[in-house]
Amino acid sequence: MNDKFNDECGIVAVTLKENIEAAQLAFFALNGLQHRGQQAAGLAVCNDGVMSCYKDTGLVTDVIDEQILTLLKGEMALGHVKYGPAKESFQTFAQPLIINYRNGSLATAFNGALVNGDKLRKEMEDDGVIFSTKTDCEVIAALVARHDKGNITEAVKTMMQEVQGGYAVCLMKQNCIIGARDPRGIRPLALGKLEDGYTIASESCAFDMMDAEFIRDVKPGEIIVIDGNNMTSIETEPADKAAVCAFEYVYFARPDSTIDGKNVFDVRELAGKILAAEHPVEADIIIGVPDSGTPAAIGYALESGIPFRPGLIKNKYIGRIFIQPTQVQREIGVRIKLNPIETLVKGKSVVLVDDSIVRGVTMRKIIESLRHVGAKEVHLRISSPPIRNCCFYGVDTPDVKDFIATSRPVEEIRQELGADSLGFISIEGLLDSLGGCEYCVGCFSGEYPVEADD
Amino acid sequence: MNDKFNDECGIVAVTLKENIEAAQLAFFALNGLQHRGQQAAGLAVCNDGVMSCYKDTGLVTDVIDEQILTLLKGEMALGHVKYGPAKESFQTFAQPLIINYRNGSLATAFNGALVNGDKLRKEMEDDGVIFSTKTDCEVIAALVARHDKGNITEAVKTMMQEVQGGYAVCLMKQNCIIGARDPRGIRPLALGKLEDGYTIASESCAFDMMDAEFIRDVKPGEIIVIDGNNMTSIETEPADKAAVCAFEYVYFARPDSTIDGKNVFDVRELAGKILAAEHPVEADIIIGVPDSGTPAAIGYALESGIPFRPGLIKNKYIGRIFIQPTQVQREIGVRIKLNPIETLVKGKSVVLVDDSIVRGVTMRKIIESLRHVGAKEVHLRISSPPIRNCCFYGVDTPDVKDFIATSRPVEEIRQELGADSLGFISIEGLLDSLGGCEYCVGCFSGEYPVEADD
Amino acid sequence: MNDKFNDECGIVAVTLKENIEAAQLAFFALNGLQHRGQQAAGLAVCNDGVMSCYKDTGLVTDVIDEQILTLLKGEMALGHVKYGPAKESFQTFAQPLIINYRNGSLATAFNGALVNGDKLRKEMEDDGVIFSTKTDCEVIAALVARHDKGNITEAVKTMMQEVQGGYAVCLMKQNCIIGARDPRGIRPLALGKLEDGYTIASESCAFDMMDAEFIRDVKPGEIIVIDGNNMTSIETEPADKAAVCAFEYVYFARPDSTIDGKNVFDVRELAGKILAAEHPVEADIIIGVPDSGTPAAIGYALESGIPFRPGLIKNKYIGRIFIQPTQVQREIGVRIKLNPIETLVKGKSVVLVDDSIVRGVTMRKIIESLRHVGAKEVHLRISSPPIRNCCFYGVDTPDVKDFIATSRPVEEIRQELGADSLGFISIEGLLDSLGGCEYCVGCFSGEYPVEADD
Amino acid sequence: MNDKFNDECGIVAVTLKENIEAAQLAFFALNGLQHRGQQAAGLAVCNDGVMSCYKDTGLVTDVIDEQILTLLKGEMALGHVKYGPAKESFQTFAQPLIINYRNGSLATAFNGALVNGDKLRKEMEDDGVIFSTKTDCEVIAALVARHDKGNITEAVKTMMQEVQGGYAVCLMKQNCIIGARDPRGIRPLALGKLEDGYTIASESCAFDMMDAEFIRDVKPGEIIVIDGNNMTSIETEPADKAAVCAFEYVYFARPDSTIDGKNVFDVRELAGKILAAEHPVEADIIIGVPDSGTPAAIGYALESGIPFRPGLIKNKYIGRIFIQPTQVQREIGVRIKLNPIETLVKGKSVVLVDDSIVRGVTMRKIIESLRHVGAKEVHLRISSPPIRNCCFYGVDTPDVKDFIATSRPVEEIRQELGADSLGFISIEGLLDSLGGCEYCVGCFSGEYPVEADD
Repeated sequence: MNDKFNDECGIVAVTLKENIEAAQLAFFALNGLQHRGQQAAGLAVCNDGVMSCYKDTGLVTDVIDEQILTLLKGEMALGHVKYGPAKESFQTFAQPLIINYRNGSLATAFNGALVNGDKLRKEMEDDGVIFSTKTDCEVIAALVARHDKGNITEAVKTMMQEVQGGYAVCLMKQNCIIGARDPRGIRPLALGKLEDGYTIASESCAFDMMDAEFIRDVKPGEIIVIDGNNMTSIETEPADKAAVCAFEYVYFARPDSTIDGKNVFDVRELAGKILAAEHPVEADIIIGVPDSGTPAAIGYALESGIPFRPGLIKNKYIGRIFIQPTQVQREIGVRIKLNPIETLVKGKSVVLVDDSIVRGVTMRKIIESLRHVGAKEVHLRISSPPIRNCCFYGVDTPDVKDFIATSRPVEEIRQELGADSLGFISIEGLLDSLGGCEYCVGCFSGEYPVEADD
Repeated sequence: MNDKFNDECGIVAVTLKENIEAAQLAFFALNGLQHRGQQAAGLAVCNDGVMSCYKDTGLVTDVIDEQILTLLKGEMALGHVKYGPAKESFQTFAQPLIINYRNGSLATAFNGALVNGDKLRKEMEDDGVIFSTKTDCEVIAALVARHDKGNITEAVKTMMQEVQGGYAVCLMKQNCIIGARDPRGIRPLALGKLEDGYTIASESCAFDMMDAEFIRDVKPGEIIVIDGNNMTSIETEPADKAAVCAFEYVYFARPDSTIDGKNVFDVRELAGKILAAEHPVEADIIIGVPDSGTPAAIGYALESGIPFRPGLIKNKYIGRIFIQPTQVQREIGVRIKLNPIETLVKGKSVVLVDDSIVRGVTMRKIIESLRHVGAKEVHLRISSPPIRNCCFYGVDTPDVKDFIATSRPVEEIRQELGADSLGFISIEGLLDSLGGCEYCVGCFSGEYPVEADD
Repeated sequence: MNDKFNDECGIVAVTLKENIEAAQLAFFALNGLQHRGQQAAGLAVCNDGVMSCYKDTGLVTDVIDEQILTLLKGEMALGHVKYGPAKESFQTFAQPLIINYRNGSLATAFNGALVNGDKLRKEMEDDGVIFSTKTDCEVIAALVARHDKGNITEAVKTMMQEVQGGYAVCLMKQNCIIGARDPRGIRPLALGKLEDGYTIASESCAFDMMDAEFIRDVKPGEIIVIDGNNMTSIETEPADKAAVCAFEYVYFARPDSTIDGKNVFDVRELAGKILAAEHPVEADIIIGVPDSGTPAAIGYALESGIPFRPGLIKNKYIGRIFIQPTQVQREIGVRIKLNPIETLVKGKSVVLVDDSIVRGVTMRKIIESLRHVGAKEVHLRISSPPIRNCCFYGVDTPDVKDFIATSRPVEEIRQELGADSLGFISIEGLLDSLGGCEYCVGCFSGEYPVEADD
Repeated sequence: MNDKFNDECGIVAVTLKENIEAAQLAFFALNGLQHRGQQAAGLAVCNDGVMSCYKDTGLVTDVIDEQILTLLKGEMALGHVKYGPAKESFQTFAQPLIINYRNGSLATAFNGALVNGDKLRKEMEDDGVIFSTKTDCEVIAALVARHDKGNITEAVKTMMQEVQGGYAVCLMKQNCIIGARDPRGIRPLALGKLEDGYTIASESCAFDMMDAEFIRDVKPGEIIVIDGNNMTSIETEPADKAAVCAFEYVYFARPDSTIDGKNVFDVRELAGKILAAEHPVEADIIIGVPDSGTPAAIGYALESGIPFRPGLIKNKYIGRIFIQPTQVQREIGVRIKLNPIETLVKGKSVVLVDDSIVRGVTMRKIIESLRHVGAKEVHLRISSPPIRNCCFYGVDTPDVKDFIATSRPVEEIRQELGADSLGFISIEGLLDSLGGCEYCVGCFSGEYPVEADD
């Protein structure tokens, strides 16, 4: 039903100097990162050298209740939320992942994907390494463990020289937490200051949940090591050019997050303005598809002067029925989730704004429902370019052949969706909204910053 | 946390001619009425004269799953969602309520409250009637059963002459469904046409979930009887003057519902415009408290010319943690639920618009959080008048002494909340937005259309 | 799978003088009465005049956990365990049942069945009474409520003059608990003394769980009223002749209970001895079908001199899978539940002793499994007579046509079961084991102490 | 409450030629092995080379329901039941364990313990191996994976040369299942024939659940490889002398199992006879502590001529409340679990027989309860010798200092327990009941067949 790309994970690490409530803070942060993954959640803590972990399928508040939180004491904590169906039957491979090796325990929370993960796994298997899962997270953990001759920072550095892909990772050893971001900065990672320690998280909005102060983004290729109250930065050689995932701004991140200096809401609103300039239309009202289409709709309204109205009412309660595939009753029409306000729409010419289209099935139904209540015209405007390629850096994309835009001109998409007109922002327009060119737009352009393995 | 009044119930009845999937449709409708009550849900069906019922605490989709729906076959169905903590220990008294009496079974789903419920109950108890619950719903059912000499419609009519209060009720007998609305129309009730039958529901948005066509509102004092495919209307003597609950428009109802000829979104937007006219202010941006403050914020923006921005981000996932009192971790700050976008707010003069304030605790925290991220000024505007009295017609109101506005001038409220200025819409302004005076505004004015018992 | 008759209920009432932990004691007692019903459990308390109740489907320890017990404070408590599938769809009608009427609240816990329950219900319905369930328990409660003109004892007395059937009932009013047993004493009820109060329960074994002292059985037709620390006995006119249910001794009651002066284990062992005398056989070993066949098997062994051996091993863990119909995987053979010890049985002539046979399906499989591991001969001996009639006094009996013994001579039953020989104890033999004739043996003889309604 | 040693595991492997319902059979077998572990259960399958696994905490029927079973298709299956509290916080480490390595996947189910497990783990860690758990099971799996150069049988053989301890293990590769037993045969393992394949399981009773035919026990030090329909035996050098765990016969195994040629019930009954000869007493009745004391009680009765009576009634339903530590209400007295039959015991001199005593707390309460109902004398007889040492081979033993028998003469134990007399079978007597000396009696004698590491 939710016709969007899905991010794979949100991660957070917390280290405190004076108390052992790191998990409490990480729990709050995970709630703020819940939009990055709703299928599994987990918290690991390190209490005076001893690691514990609790993780399961479900939302953060389903998995971690007050009682469990009471048991998860420790001066350091690592948290993870995960999107994504089981890769192997019955196993969701919730994270953090704790491994035991010659230098003790290591906990890992990972967001992203490696393009050479399978190759590295096979090489290590040939070398006698044994894996419990088929995740890239375990590949990362195993590489760090293998290279750890007593200096975990060096081990992480060596790992980063070997892996290729887009990722952000947090690690926890008995004496420190470490955050690292791939050399192109494809996945986001930010550094924050707590009253009594430090924190590293996928998005800055997680800091707001902990009353942490945003310090700065972790740089592409940077390793941050926080040991007690000392924060050290190791800059590995970054790539020539950053390639931050543009889709983080288009859809994944929360509007109240700021990534690499750009506030997500601002980017979305500006994209809406550029979209209005690229694809103007005469109309009576602007409606955004809630919630992700709203900022661009407001931008479109500001630029065009056509009034914005929240003309589609989203059912706040039914959301979860669609997220959990096993309970889906897909026959329930789109109107149970999104219902138009007839008095607003009847007899009107409507500009409908959304952030992206993947398969287009839901969008066709939304347009139908607008016509059903009497919309005179429906002009669809999308604040990201047509998606025509899959992602290799941690976004769960369906088969390229299922994208509505794959090898199809815009006019055909318009017909398929039943809109009166259709306009996508251009790649240049999107990059303008981002204010630069150091972004990965591979899913739109087919040009990738890191070559895939096969 | 959610500092709002809470409605007590949503109800729906469905009757079909050709098939026995009435519960399926009622289930969809209940999902559309979920905003009227999240603590219990239930469905009763009548299949060829035999009634069954399934009900429990939880959201509709928690209580009724596919398997249960498969078992609930019948040509007629009655559904109910309920707000409200247990009145007696451990018992939630979910509805529909089925009773057995000399003329068979009777199922009842009720929204509202009686002012003479306890008196009627005592009279019946003195007469030998035995009750299983302490609900007004059972009082209604018992009265109908006692007066039923073979003509259920007459029995409902007699019941309506005896009870006083604000209510809408749906009943199901072996051969018909009945909807009735109190003589002042305090609680809403609407009539819809299904392809193969009829439906009656609290709000018109429920019809959209079933692909039913809205026919009209049930009139104050009207009884609708649907027997097979025949729909009969009995108009009992209505009150001199209707007194539809104004708070349904202010907060309870969904914006996509139309009640008594007024679309809810339209009323809210218009109230926002009137509010802007009554309490203008110079400012940089308008922010609505999501989701209920948004329509009035848009109205305020349209009237004032100051741009609307969705500057508070609501956590879509955490909602339920606060609704279920047993799982509350109240220490989690308001920012986990509502987080301001710093880049939008910093250095700005903000008009913050909400639909109502009850205790004011959350609002004070929201204003604090706006200042925390750098708002220069925060001007609070409320699209309903100060609430200073409790409701006797089915709205769960806290103690009057806990209302922030009780016996306190606006200036004191402003100081308490920490706003730079504060304006409430006037009672007249609210009535203007409703386009008439036949509304109950008792919680604002203290003048009630039906006298309370004691 | 469990081819036995099923009792319908176990009940307990507790009243204390000095503290409000009555529910704690009743909880312990219910655990001791769990064998009388595993499908629902409930506890009601009265705390200084205010009644609360918690009940649900499941075992006592599933329904009542420590947290709930903590909330159930009161100087009086009523408990109930229930066997029996839902009479109406989805409703298990767990007890105790609390009703509200002109003289306050009344809680009722009932074991048994009325033969004129439906007639009484109809009469009351004609008189305007409304029922929430279709249970005899509610009929009893309604009668007591109707007759209660301020003297609850008189009301119970009048109720007992009106109802006909076999029952034991405990009631709780704001100021007393009451126990009553039908005039023939068909269902058991016993009176016990607690250090700080009194207790009434279905079986004396419940007293052992509470460290209560067994005082005596409640007499047929007797009403026991316990008000504070005063115990009053009202003897209504009992029937000419008692008719205690013989099946309580055969199967329902726990072996450690003593009912009407007879210890249950003793009766069963003696029945085994009489069975051996009535149906002797040459054999190598005696095996009882665990657990209910063991006492008679030991009696048979003592009388015959053939050694007793526990040759069938019962799976302690799987029990519940078969009790809960929805989880049944009936294809799992009987050996998962009962497995013979091959070394004990191989080449041996076996006397297999059980307490009763209803349908016979399980018994045929047990005999097959004994032959499968090499039993030379299997001589089946049953310590109750052939069951050929249903029960009208609260025992859940299948259709008479499904009984293996209905209108079929013993020889045919033997063939059907595949035994080498088959002997049932005679009705006289059973009565001898009970030491008298004041017992109901209706299910064996077809002669009933109380006439059924239709 | 259950004052017994606890075994650590039960294991089963199934391989079929013609169909993919191996998990169905393994599920039945696990139900028959449930007594070996109630805290976690799991099933792994291999379907045409692809492995899946489902495991969780709880009983077999809690973890594996019909729906999950439907999804677990495969021509081979591995099953495991586990006793034992979490070794690391929150992690129960349910088995089977699946690892991925250079030669594909390997599933392992393990029963027992290694005395050099930690040493081997450290050696492998030094060599770069990474572990996900701290279990000996993973040590075994890692060793097999490391030594697997394409010949899994050779790898298992090498693993067995390296590990020391008492264990039985089942492994599953894409093309075969393997069973192996330690060189002294400390833990049991048996081989069975299915109509369409083979099976290996901890106890022969598991075969009865699947209609499998017992072939023979796996020999100490033997490796059984079943590849399609070919069964191969590799005999590694066994120890000079077998050392089968005597406690398997005393308490762990089911009475209907036959281990290494001795039926468990027979051994227990014979131990009871020997106990009667070693410690005769004049008394009126013999009572066994159900269920595990019953066979020895019957043996004692047969030898002494004193009649056996089941004088302690076990609550069939409450069992699980005590097994699950989090739900324990330990204050509930022993009588809720075990209640004496007063009429049997009153005024009698009782011989109370049990299989073993560990801490003695429960036994003291049982003796108290017998005296409470009037026992004149209580003579305690135990069919195993005093336990004075812990086990290193997979039995979960409490601290030695908590054993009632540690460094205390029998007379003191008698006083502590409050018995009139006390007799333990001698070690020689126990070995006589086993018919030989090739048994491990380390927990009684302190002499161990395999030296512990530290």
